Amino acid sequence: MCGIFAYLNYRVPRSRRDILQTLVKGLQRLEYRGYDSAGVAVDGPGKDNGTSIALFKKKGKVKALDEEIYKNESVDLDAQLDTHFGIAHTRWATHGEPSAVNSHPQRSDKNNEFVVIHNGIITNYKELKKYLGSKGYEFESETDTEVIPKLIKYLYDNRESDSVSFSTLVERVIKQLEASDEGAFALVFKSIHFPGEAVATRRGSPLLIGVRSQYELSTEQIPVQYNRGDSTIEVEEEKNFRNRQGSINALHSVHDGMAVEFYFASDASAIIEHTNKVIYLEDDDVAVVNEGKLYVHRVKSAAGDDPVRVIQTLQMELQQIMKGNFKAFMQKEIFEQPESVFNTMRGRICFDTNEVTLGGLKDHLKEIKRCRRLIIIGCGTSFHAGVATRQILEELTELPVMVELASDFLDRITPVFRDDVCFFISQSGETADTLMALRYCKQRGALTVGITNTVGSSICRETDCGVHINAGPEVGVASTKAYTSQFVSLIMFGLMMSEDRLSLQQRRLEIINGLKKLPELIKEVLSLDDKIKSLADELDHQKSLLVMGRGYNYATCLEGALKIKEITYMHSEGIMAGELKHGPLALIDKHMPVIMIIMKDACYQKCQNALQQVTARQGRPIIICCQNDPEISKMAYKTIELPHTVDCLQGILSVIPLQLISFHLAVLRGYDVDCPRNLAKSVTVE
Amino acid sequence: MCGIFAYLNYRVPRSRRDILQTLVKGLQRLEYRGYDSAGVAVDGPGKDNGTSIALFKKKGKVKALDEEIYKNESVDLDAQLDTHFGIAHTRWATHGEPSAVNSHPQRSDKNNEFVVIHNGIITNYKELKKYLGSKGYEFESETDTEVIPKLIKYLYDNRESDSVSFSTLVERVIKQLEASDEGAFALVFKSIHFPGEAVATRRGSPLLIGVRSQYELSTEQIPVQYNRGDSTIEVEEEKNFRNRQGSINALHSVHDGMAVEFYFASDASAIIEHTNKVIYLEDDDVAVVNEGKLYVHRVKSAAGDDPVRVIQTLQMELQQIMKGNFKAFMQKEIFEQPESVFNTMRGRICFDTNEVTLGGLKDHLKEIKRCRRLIIIGCGTSFHAGVATRQILEELTELPVMVELASDFLDRITPVFRDDVCFFISQSGETADTLMALRYCKQRGALTVGITNTVGSSICRETDCGVHINAGPEVGVASTKAYTSQFVSLIMFGLMMSEDRLSLQQRRLEIINGLKKLPELIKEVLSLDDKIKSLADELDHQKSLLVMGRGYNYATCLEGALKIKEITYMHSEGIMAGELKHGPLALIDKHMPVIMIIMKDACYQKCQNALQQVTARQGRPIIICCQNDPEISKMAYKTIELPHTVDCLQGILSVIPLQLISFHLAVLRGYDVDCPRNLAKSVTVE
Repeated sequence: MCGIFAYLNYRVPRSRRDILQTLVKGLQRLEYRGYDSAGVAVDGPGKDNGTSIALFKKKGKVKALDEEIYKNESVDLDAQLDTHFGIAHTRWATHGEPSAVNSHPQRSDKNNEFVVIHNGIITNYKELKKYLGSKGYEFESETDTEVIPKLIKYLYDNRESDSVSFSTLVERVIKQLEASDEGAFALVFKSIHFPGEAVATRRGSPLLIGVRSQYELSTEQIPVQYNRGDSTIEVEEEKNFRNRQGSINALHSVHDGMAVEFYFASDASAIIEHTNKVIYLEDDDVAVVNEGKLYVHRVKSAAGDDPVRVIQTLQMELQQIMKGNFKAFMQKEIFEQPESVFNTMRGRICFDTNEVTLGGLKDHLKEIKRCRRLIIIGCGTSFHAGVATRQILEELTELPVMVELASDFLDRITPVFRDDVCFFISQSGETADTLMALRYCKQRGALTVGITNTVGSSICRETDCGVHINAGPEVGVASTKAYTSQFVSLIMFGLMMSEDRLSLQQRRLEIINGLKKLPELIKEVLSLDDKIKSLADELDHQKSLLVMGRGYNYATCLEGALKIKEITYMHSEGIMAGELKHGPLALIDKHMPVIMIIMKDACYQKCQNALQQVTARQGRPIIICCQNDPEISKMAYKTIELPHTVDCLQGILSVIPLQLISFHLAVLRGYDVDCPRNLAKSVTVE
Repeated sequence: MCGIFAYLNYRVPRSRRDILQTLVKGLQRLEYRGYDSAGVAVDGPGKDNGTSIALFKKKGKVKALDEEIYKNESVDLDAQLDTHFGIAHTRWATHGEPSAVNSHPQRSDKNNEFVVIHNGIITNYKELKKYLGSKGYEFESETDTEVIPKLIKYLYDNRESDSVSFSTLVERVIKQLEASDEGAFALVFKSIHFPGEAVATRRGSPLLIGVRSQYELSTEQIPVQYNRGDSTIEVEEEKNFRNRQGSINALHSVHDGMAVEFYFASDASAIIEHTNKVIYLEDDDVAVVNEGKLYVHRVKSAAGDDPVRVIQTLQMELQQIMKGNFKAFMQKEIFEQPESVFNTMRGRICFDTNEVTLGGLKDHLKEIKRCRRLIIIGCGTSFHAGVATRQILEELTELPVMVELASDFLDRITPVFRDDVCFFISQSGETADTLMALRYCKQRGALTVGITNTVGSSICRETDCGVHINAGPEVGVASTKAYTSQFVSLIMFGLMMSEDRLSLQQRRLEIINGLKKLPELIKEVLSLDDKIKSLADELDHQKSLLVMGRGYNYATCLEGALKIKEITYMHSEGIMAGELKHGPLALIDKHMPVIMIIMKDACYQKCQNALQQVTARQGRPIIICCQNDPEISKMAYKTIELPHTVDCLQGILSVIPLQLISFHLAVLRGYDVDCPRNLAKSVTVE
């Protein structure tokens, strides 16, 4: 997840300082989407009207970029620019660590002929990079994005005619990106060859355009224009084509020389302070602003496509926009899980060939396969991700897997050997105990693997190799989407390790198919929110809560109980159902609230036994179970029925109701969901 | 721990049926001390007055023996016996599995010339067995006890004169048992060569004698008689010696031909229904009943010895006697820990040479040392014993150690290999999940080791080798003394594994010295009972409790919280202090009761940090800490100050206050301490 923002003023004179301030402010609104580096591109250095481009890029938060800009004296900040187009980006690294050179805008060449900002992942960037490299285009960054400005310059350099339009070039670019249907992008292009002209497009990633004018606008809805079969329409011809539709084919101001301002952004939070009139782009829309007019066109038409893009009026408050329709970031992040889980898999699982490739581990795979054991190390939620996947990793790798709490691992001065492979799981990549455990293991010669959500973090840098979970920034202190993405990342590692094992092919296939359907199933679970809220209402007055399960769903109990502890301050505990008779059963009576997880897997019968023990003691369990399981439902006080998936993935679905219960309970109790008392997002001290 | 009971009637005619009923009833009262097999020896078969001995022995509870006796037709049950001496025993196996042949009375030969009942352990039995074997004495059982009847017969067979007394023979026997100062015994001897005569002695193990007569007794206190330097006093001479002292040198009835009955038992519970007049024997007393007179003598006198044994009058109820001065077996077992821990070490640690020998593992040690990892498997408290010793085992064995919950281990179908060594910990030796895990590991070719409190249990039988923790039977459902003895057993295993490692000698020595002092330190902790009770009073109204610690004391938190769950039904949870900031800290405010364990070990500083976090959030922790630690005390709401021991043994001391708190809380709440709701002592179903 990254934030993109761009600003075009047409015949509304602004100083370059104003423009830069607008761009920086836009980025700051989007910073929750990423904050490891940022950059802007504006026309520079004087009043030269778009024939050269000045780039400012800086590692760190947007504030660091802002300071950088004013340190710089290469551009005239006070120059008044009648018409100008500037683009800006705040990054959450996925490919290439945070650094100036890896941050956006990415450029075509040292001359900045084309610059691009991008949110998303280009999955086929390696092939493109190789091709363009063979044509002599030199790459400077480690990003996937850089292929885009290089590609558009290649297409421009090899154009059939001088009259090729900017939007045609962009259409040709995204056609190449179509090679993989896993990629996602929102892109905004700027070029010295097309001064004052903006082209934006999206697929998968969000993008909207705000429009501001003090004058009447030409239309309330922009008709989508379809290009002809080939997209080699040249500029003049295209203009004619447009003109044939009459003037309402574009959005513009109808007075004062068409004076107007356009804002492009990943979400409305960056636009709302400027205007409440916005157009949401659809997948594969190409939006062009040229001479103050906004056109939307598409390469191909398809049945059912909406023929117009309506200008909408936003009624939301800024805070509301930032969290969407959500009361808290945590809630938003819970509901983002269909996308975040998909993003974790994006470009890594090929569902046609059933191949799984984690780029960061590929070169170390042989070494990992030769190890004598896997040790998974983390704290809190990250530790639970290890617990959740331990069994399937043991199955797929046929290696002993140990899962360790980082602090305890260090306290115990655990023996670690050269032939161990140690995984370090941390959302922030900066968790102090996990980082120290990493250093401890490195010292002893073990191969170290990082699993983080933060490219360029300490754990990223100090491990031998790793996986980025690509869940996007997580703001809520109680981790939700990072957990499910860590879970999926570890599963993918297991799949990669077992690629060559004939006897495991059937199982692999089953899991890969399960992963494919996962985002849809997560949506299905999220649709139970109302029912889950009503359960939370019932639990509100309770002081204690036990969450019980075993096998693949034991980690869910630990993680669910932790969520409830963290944000509701209710004493909840995850209990291994197999241990019930060894003590915890004594707690059970009709007053003790119990949540049990009983899915149809190898532990089903054993869980049913546990359920019988609980109900025999007047327990009234809320049961998270499979759909259509009357055996279980009839013994439950209440049920939450989940869609069924492969046993080893069920934990991704079963944790969500507990995330939601904890959220609703915290709201009911009037607590600050995103900032629970006593806790910090990233624990960077021991 | 075993129960011994004997009954001598002098000129009080009884049928053999009555006598056997008395013996069996006595055993039933003592059954809490052991119940895996039982036996009696009486004169048989007719009215032949002690010239032959009939033995009845049976595996199982005393009831099984009782049935066995009445099935048997070899003795005349209705025969009236004017004077008779019968002995009886209920066993808790330590050497040799429960079986008829291993149960007591043990005998000298097929002719039953000498029969003996024994409670305790003879540590030098192997040497004695070898010596007697070389002299042609054939052994039939696997017990340590059997050397005693064999030895007394050897001494009898090789006597200097026909007039050697029974007590002299016994004195010579116990002189041989002196070879090891670790042994413990309470013994009662019967012989066809000394019909109607009883000899009893004790060291370490308890023994008392009850006396019943409807007539006046000769004295209120029996003067102790000291033999001369050599103990080869012959019968006549001895009688003269006694007579020189006048008639008050013995206890007897002064009327009706001195009609009297004597009862010998491990504790008063078996005697109180017959008489409330008892004499407690001191270590090394030899008590003899001959011709209706009870004498007490000793081989040597020492300064400060009490010159008399007073006849005491018991005021206790039966129930009170059985539990001693305790309200519940659990409390009794908590207070037994100085002895039970000592018994676990008895004969295994030589504190002079610092050698540690676990007989059951000796032959497998080489194989264990070659393994690639140790896996410790258990449920509930037994699992916690593994958690508690994991670090020191990793240190002393330099092997990776995994500690697994048996149910989860099975659920996960954990990979196990031929070069793994798997430990199975279970008090009863019958825990279903642990037993199934054992079978699972055996199937995969791992070496299996049992750690149980029950010789002959399924886990004992099915493992390749093992350790008996010798804690004695545990009646309370909530395990206490078994935990500390499991703990010590695992420590001893670590010490045995590291015997040959030069670099670990210093550490080993430190631990062995720590173990030596442990029983005394446990007593010191137990002396804090009143203070701990007052803390329990304060906690009584609470609904929740967190127990926090890390490193060596983390297991204490888990185990302490489990005790509280089990018997007080309060929701308590053990929390790894290192994880506080990753979630549980949110629970802390001034209302949440917290117990923290902060000892002066490698985690001291880190625990102090955790303490600061807790107090900064208005937490008011009860802290279990070292004596004289003002740094900690000043931040505590209340403290429980424990004596300091070696870091890896501290958990044995730190768990005791939590055992006591749980006990007092349960009493305050009016719950049945020994039989908590919903739980059973031994979980023999999955």
